[in-house]
Amino acid sequence: MTQSESCDDDPQTTQEQILQATYRALHRYGYAGLTIQRIADFTDVSKSSIYYHHEDKDELLLAFLERVLRDVQAGFEIEPEHDPVADLERFLERIFASIDPEPATEALPIGAYVEIRSQAVSNAAYRERVTDIDDALESQFRSLLQQGVEQGVVKDVDVGQVSEYLLTTIVGTLERYATTDEFAVEVVRAELERYLEHRVIA
Amino acid sequence: MTQSESCDDDPQTTQEQILQATYRALHRYGYAGLTIQRIADFTDVSKSSIYYHHEDKDELLLAFLERVLRDVQAGFEIEPEHDPVADLERFLERIFASIDPEPATEALPIGAYVEIRSQAVSNAAYRERVTDIDDALESQFRSLLQQGVEQGVVKDVDVGQVSEYLLTTIVGTLERYATTDEFAVEVVRAELERYLEHRVIA
Repeated sequence: MTQSESCDDDPQTTQEQILQATYRALHRYGYAGLTIQRIADFTDVSKSSIYYHHEDKDELLLAFLERVLRDVQAGFEIEPEHDPVADLERFLERIFASIDPEPATEALPIGAYVEIRSQAVSNAAYRERVTDIDDALESQFRSLLQQGVEQGVVKDVDVGQVSEYLLTTIVGTLERYATTDEFAVEVVRAELERYLEHRVIA
Repeated sequence: MTQSESCDDDPQTTQEQILQATYRALHRYGYAGLTIQRIADFTDVSKSSIYYHHEDKDELLLAFLERVLRDVQAGFEIEPEHDPVADLERFLERIFASIDPEPATEALPIGAYVEIRSQAVSNAAYRERVTDIDDALESQFRSLLQQGVEQGVVKDVDVGQVSEYLLTTIVGTLERYATTDEFAVEVVRAELERYLEHRVIA
């Protein structure tokens, strides 16, 4: 393959490389320590090319939130086993597996996500992306629960209400994991299972 | 009362006035818009006196988190009716009542709290305070549930596990309320009731 055919010239690939490097820089330095130089250090893409794609850090972080949205949509898309309860369990398992004290560099940098997410309080563009991320997760819960109700393996619950509740617990789990000391993720996970057992699974 | 005896000279009262004004300024301008001048505009305490008590905005926000901790400890201290389930319901009622689109100026400014809380990701002093706030709420849940188990009105659950789970859902509720559009607090509240009914209350 000649230089001109290389992936580096494909804008979409360059953008993907920048975002992968952003994930890595956020894992290493956190949100406060993120600079364009540090992102450039994790990729072959030049600083000037990063500036060409993203005019400032704010615009780059919006692209980060869009990448989180795509990861949520793609990464948690379970190959359906046509057993909605098993699929729900695997879906939750994947979400909790992302809360890892030694995460892979391609995993969601949870602390940075919590910090960036908090900017949605006062920034409408961030707020729109965060709402989309929550909606994407909620609709996956809803779809699995709906299938479960139809197959009689989930109780006849308000699937929208249960989905909102599950998502809220997960958002709280990420928040407490990122902002407090000695938070026991596995304790919350265990009680979530009791909730499903007593209230949701038929 | 002579001038020298007035409350204004009591350092504790001055500090309280500064913190009340900080709550008001956070309600009006949010975290990003908070300045010492804007705090001074909400109180008779002078800017120089605010600087005397708090050397910078960071130090002032630590005092804000300590005030949140005291509010959590005091404001949710229910007069016990010696009916732990009713007390638990009233405790949750007070927490959810604080999520109000038109909050009183003395109420917790939730958006600002979420933004300030997120700094605990990378700031150890903030993290310590946020951990204390979560612990204070969790221990109040734990105490009510323990009384309920002893009186036979709460199932023989792991009270620590249930308390952590309840708190996590509440933290998620605050976070989603502050960072997304069209979040339906009452839907999460309704499902929380179903959880208590099916899993916790005897």
